[in-house]
Formats: sequence, structure tokens, C-alpha cells
Amino acid sequence: MTSYDSILDYHFKIMASLTIAHLGPAGTYAETATIAYIESTQLDAELCPYPTIPQAIEALEAGQVDLAVVPVENSLEGSVNTTLDSLWRSTQDLQIQRALVLSIEHQLVTLAQDFSQIQKVYSHPQALGQCQWWLDRHLPEAQRISTNSTTEILAHLGELPKAAAISSPRAAQLYGLPVLAGPIGDQPDNQTRFLVLGYPPATIGTHTSLVFTLPANRPGALLAALEQFARRNINLSRIESRPTKRSLGEYLFFVDIEANGSEPLLAEVVQELTTCVEKIKSFGSYHITTID
Amino acid sequence: MTSYDSILDYHFKIMASLTIAHLGPAGTYAETATIAYIESTQLDAELCPYPTIPQAIEALEAGQVDLAVVPVENSLEGSVNTTLDSLWRSTQDLQIQRALVLSIEHQLVTLAQDFSQIQKVYSHPQALGQCQWWLDRHLPEAQRISTNSTTEILAHLGELPKAAAISSPRAAQLYGLPVLAGPIGDQPDNQTRFLVLGYPPATIGTHTSLVFTLPANRPGALLAALEQFARRNINLSRIESRPTKRSLGEYLFFVDIEANGSEPLLAEVVQELTTCVEKIKSFGSYHITTID
Repeated sequence: MTSYDSILDYHFKIMASLTIAHLGPAGTYAETATIAYIESTQLDAELCPYPTIPQAIEALEAGQVDLAVVPVENSLEGSVNTTLDSLWRSTQDLQIQRALVLSIEHQLVTLAQDFSQIQKVYSHPQALGQCQWWLDRHLPEAQRISTNSTTEILAHLGELPKAAAISSPRAAQLYGLPVLAGPIGDQPDNQTRFLVLGYPPATIGTHTSLVFTLPANRPGALLAALEQFARRNINLSRIESRPTKRSLGEYLFFVDIEANGSEPLLAEVVQELTTCVEKIKSFGSYHITTID
Repeated sequence: MTSYDSILDYHFKIMASLTIAHLGPAGTYAETATIAYIESTQLDAELCPYPTIPQAIEALEAGQVDLAVVPVENSLEGSVNTTLDSLWRSTQDLQIQRALVLSIEHQLVTLAQDFSQIQKVYSHPQALGQCQWWLDRHLPEAQRISTNSTTEILAHLGELPKAAAISSPRAAQLYGLPVLAGPIGDQPDNQTRFLVLGYPPATIGTHTSLVFTLPANRPGALLAALEQFARRNINLSRIESRPTKRSLGEYLFFVDIEANGSEPLLAEVVQELTTCVEKIKSFGSYHITTID
């Protein structure tokens, strides 16, 4: 059974249109990823925009939606910390149903006629970070204002002639706003990886994701954990550390593994890890789809 | 020879007062860390504030200063990405002379009489992140404006009665500004680790830091690199991945190692790593000092 079948199966069980939470309002990259996911899976689904990433994940945890699509990593700015922190805090057994890779093309959306009029640039901190060199060069004096999404300010931009937003071309079109410059990303190859989160057990996939913490003050603990993978020749495509927020030097380790969770050797690793880590959480196995 | 001796030696060689770059303007946590470093080493040194972290590092690379003190990691918000990215981009052989751990106590600095008057909160993105839950609860409607440091806005705050800044108690005092609330960090134990960067070779220390990239499209490459440490029982206290900014899924791995670079086993690891990584850079060995 593919993970697509597993979603469909889940869908028929609940006998209703699926609801999918994503970061809103309309026009975000998360929405684009969600629409592409719906099209590729031919699901009958309803989009449910939420104002922040944690709120989209909380809606899934509270059973208000069936799935949530959240950004987890960008090729220029790295991890989306709020997503990783929300996944760790989650008290539910969220499983990754699919990873989606989306190309990002940022544009400077504004009513201003030229750069000299622009005093403020609004966007999500990730987008501000992905365009930081461009902003340093072209708008060094403009204030950079963090918003919850790349589209949050767009509905108000009409009343702010000295402001600009960093958004997608699709968002500019959706809100009927002009584009003054673009693409403005610091590198041409800019991609974001999104996760489709839900409860149906993800069964088959090319990748598996785990997060674990290590016992405090035990030298060699990280080594012992990583050795479990090394010994069985299982490759990690990624290790990302996040602070536990308890004490400097204590981390959560998010690992992406190039193996399926039902692979006997990986099952062995997970079993061994439970003896050397403090806490471990599995987000299941899934496929990665690139959105054209 | 201790790394302190090595600094002194370097100092006497150049026959002048040492100059130390740090993130400014006056009152930043980086300045507090730098002052504590100067006091603990009894160096005759001059503080040189720079408006951004990359500019402080570039000043060191250009030979305009002898040392630079930059934040690298916070216990709540994790890595300071601009520092890691600047260290990787650096074309010079920067060496870590010392790591400094400083307690952080954020306060809400403002002329406003109560929260309802505050429409904007200015600070460095790290400080905004470290107080995000507090801001969500107490100032949910206020815009969060990213600045280059926690003190950049303070000189202008007198003209902005509806604005607040997140800064240290020392900064509030320095600029003669009132504190409306504090501490406002999301967790009581908040610490930032700073690095003292320079050119004198760091010789003896408890920790060694490296960064490496892996050859593209070679499964098992991360495993092969980590195995070099595991095989010799050398513990990593930290692994932090950052995107190479070339392509999604390609990372730099910053590793902090619990061993001195002159330890023969570690020298062996570094030798072996050169055969399995794409590029490797060592930042030397150093001690970690906690600032009281």
C-alpha cells in the first residue's frame, strides 16, 4: 500500500471531504504546496488557512482538520524553527504523509514607483532572510518588519504607499498588486520543503524522520546514538539540532533517514535508540515529491 | 602555552592596544561579553562596535581589528545563522580564541505607560524569537520589527512613544530609558554563547570546532564522516547543519568536538575527513568561559 492509498483509505473511512490546514492568508507558498498536493493526489479537499504555523499544527492536533501542510526547510535560510519546535511540542502522534519540494520565487510587491520611496519591507522572517543580500544592496535603509506569513500584509498594502512586501508572483496577482522588482532571492535556486502532517499511519516511503533528546551530562551520548545508524550502514540525509530550551548545550536532534521505517535494520536502530536516548519520537516514513 | 598566553604573545608582537570588534551600538549583549572577556584576560583593549555581525567579522578579515566577538548560539532560539554563514564564507583562517557563555535577561524598554499604547516592538530577530510567547500573550497586535542589534533603535526611542525595544537592563540604563516589563524571555534560563575570533593560533582547549561539506549525491557520505569520530570514541557536543545555499538537501555541518585539536586521535580524524568530505575548515581549539 502506498502512502497515497493510505490517505485515500483514511479519507473514505471518515466519509467526508478532507480539510487541510496551511499557513494563510491566501497566496502563501504553503497554500501553493497544498493545492499541488491536492491535485497530485486527486483528493476532494478543502483548504483551511491559519494565521501562523503553530496554529495550523494545533488545529490538526485538536482534530479541527485532517491534515496540515507546513514549511520545514528552505535551501537558503535553513530550518523553519517554529515548525521543528511545534513538532517537538506536539503531544499527538503526528505522522508525515508526504514531503513536498516547491520552487520559491520572491518578488517585491509595492505601490511605490521606485526604491527611494520604500521605508518598510514586510514579510515572513524566512523570506526576509532569503532576500537579505538583495535588501542590503537595494533597500539598505528600509525597516524589515516580520509578519506571520508572506501574504499577511497584502490586504493592507493599498493603504501603505511607502511599504513593500516580499511575496510570490501568484500572491501579487491574487491581491491585484504591482511588482516593482523580482526575482529578488539571494540565489536563483531557492526551494522550500513542506511536510504534509496527519494521523493516517504512513507506511511506505523513501525517508523516515525521527527526533530525539539525549540524557543530560553524559559524554558520548550523541556518539552512541549515531553509532546505531553507522553500524547498520543506514545513511542520514540530515541532522538538525534545535535547543531543548532547558539549558545551553542540550539539544533535540531531528534526523532524516534514507530508509523506510519498516526496513528491519531501521526498526533495530529505533529499538536500540530507546536504550540510549532520553526521549524519541518518530514521524513515520514518507515519499518526497517535487512540485513543478 | 594557554590560549590566554597566546593572545598576550600576539598582543606584544603587534606592540599596540588590541582592538576588538563586536556588534554595536553600545549596550548590546556582545559588548557585555567583550567587556567581560577583556576583564578576565586583563588585556589592554579598545572596543570597536560594528552595526551588523557580518561587518564585525569582515573588519577582522580586513585586518582593521585584532579580534571579533560574535554570538553563535542561544539556548532558546538556537544558532545565530548570520554568524555561521559568515564563518563559512570567510576566506581567512579565523581561529576561535575562546567561547564565552553569557546569561541573557531581556526587558521591554519603552516610554509607553502601558501595553495598550505599544504598536511596534523593535529588536534583533534572535531577541524577538526568545520572547515570542511573551509577545504573543502580552502584545499580540504589535508589529515586530527586526533590527541589526538589540540596541540599534534605542537612540531613537525617545521620539517613538508608541514603540518598545527588547534590550538588556544595562542598555536601558545606558540610554536612560524606562523599563516597562521584565524579564520577558520565554524561559528563565536564557544563555548565549559568543565566540572570540582572531588569528593567533589557538593551541590548547577543551573543545575544537570544524565545518565541512560533503560531496553531492553520494549516499552514505555523512555516515562516513561521522564514523571517523565514532571509531575513535571522540564525542561531538553539537552538530549543526546549515544549507550550502546551492541546492536543497546540501548542507554544511558545523561540529563542536569534545577534544583538543592537538590530541593525536582528533588529528587522525581530521586527516581521514579530508578524504571523505568535499571541503573542511578548522576553527581551532579553545576553552569555554561562563561569564557571571
